[in-house]
Amino acid sequence: MATWNSRGLRGSTLEELINRTNDQYREKGLALIQKIPTPITPVKMDKNSRHITLAYFEQKSTVDYIGAVQGIPVCFDAKECCVKTFPLANIHPHQVTFMEEFEKQKGIAFFLIYFSADNIFYYLTLRKLQEFWNRMEAGGRKSFRRDELDEEFYLTGKNGFLVPYLDGIQKDLQLRD
Amino acid sequence: MATWNSRGLRGSTLEELINRTNDQYREKGLALIQKIPTPITPVKMDKNSRHITLAYFEQKSTVDYIGAVQGIPVCFDAKECCVKTFPLANIHPHQVTFMEEFEKQKGIAFFLIYFSADNIFYYLTLRKLQEFWNRMEAGGRKSFRRDELDEEFYLTGKNGFLVPYLDGIQKDLQLRD
Ligand SMILES: [Mg+2]
Ligand SMILES: [Mg+2]
Repeated sequence: MATWNSRGLRGSTLEELINRTNDQYREKGLALIQKIPTPITPVKMDKNSRHITLAYFEQKSTVDYIGAVQGIPVCFDAKECCVKTFPLANIHPHQVTFMEEFEKQKGIAFFLIYFSADNIFYYLTLRKLQEFWNRMEAGGRKSFRRDELDEEFYLTGKNGFLVPYLDGIQKDLQLRD
Repeated sequence: MATWNSRGLRGSTLEELINRTNDQYREKGLALIQKIPTPITPVKMDKNSRHITLAYFEQKSTVDYIGAVQGIPVCFDAKECCVKTFPLANIHPHQVTFMEEFEKQKGIAFFLIYFSADNIFYYLTLRKLQEFWNRMEAGGRKSFRRDELDEEFYLTGKNGFLVPYLDGIQKDLQLRD
């Protein structure tokens, strides 16, 4: 993998942490979440090695993770942010559309944001994202700041789970009732 | 895509039919199902074209489709079969394990089988598959025949849906109650 140094590797540490959390939840029977691979279209193959020798990235991906949590359909996207201001350009309109439709199917959709400078994880509910998104579309800021976020949705590592997003889902569910 | 004639194209007609059905259900607000791309690991890239010039297939994939249907987590795998006998070797143990865990999370898992010689679709519930699977593990046949299947789980095209698997889900749910 040493030669792979573009789009594919970016953010892989975050991805690894989440994948390992998914394994933890799976082993404990608490959730079954599937990573959705980046869609890649193979074009040419070497018949002997069965390696792909030409392929390209497809443009449209929807969310990074999707699955089932104790009867509830769940999907989320992981985003890394190295400053205290999150640019909404990091989130694509078709992603938001997918998540809105997912919630119409009575699922839960959210963003898992890693603020790398502070080494902290935040569970951004879809409705909170929509507030920022609508503000932008009304001509406001194209980003949101950490101090605009809800204190209760920071995920604090505990019980040995690396990125305990089920805690976020639980709070999210409580606020919907 | 003319040069792509190995693993990737096999079954793509079935995949296209299902993808279009997913679009139909999505447009009508009946379901939101995501195709999980074949996991491909990119190794080398051409910096100018941004094409991948070396990549390989990862071994483990779980299911082809996953999503939410009106509050229910759903996943399924599509399989094509050109004869009247379906070889269980077409289904991988880790797929069955994933589906069993998915159902433990109160989701619905099934196989969508296309019998191409007869141009007919069958909704194979996970528990029916488990019957055949257990029979094999007990030393029995390594396949099942079409005449062993339940008449009611054939999907007959109607209402304009190409592969109306929601009808199968509905029957599946009724039998669980
Ligand atoms: Mg992401
Ligand atoms: Mg398949």
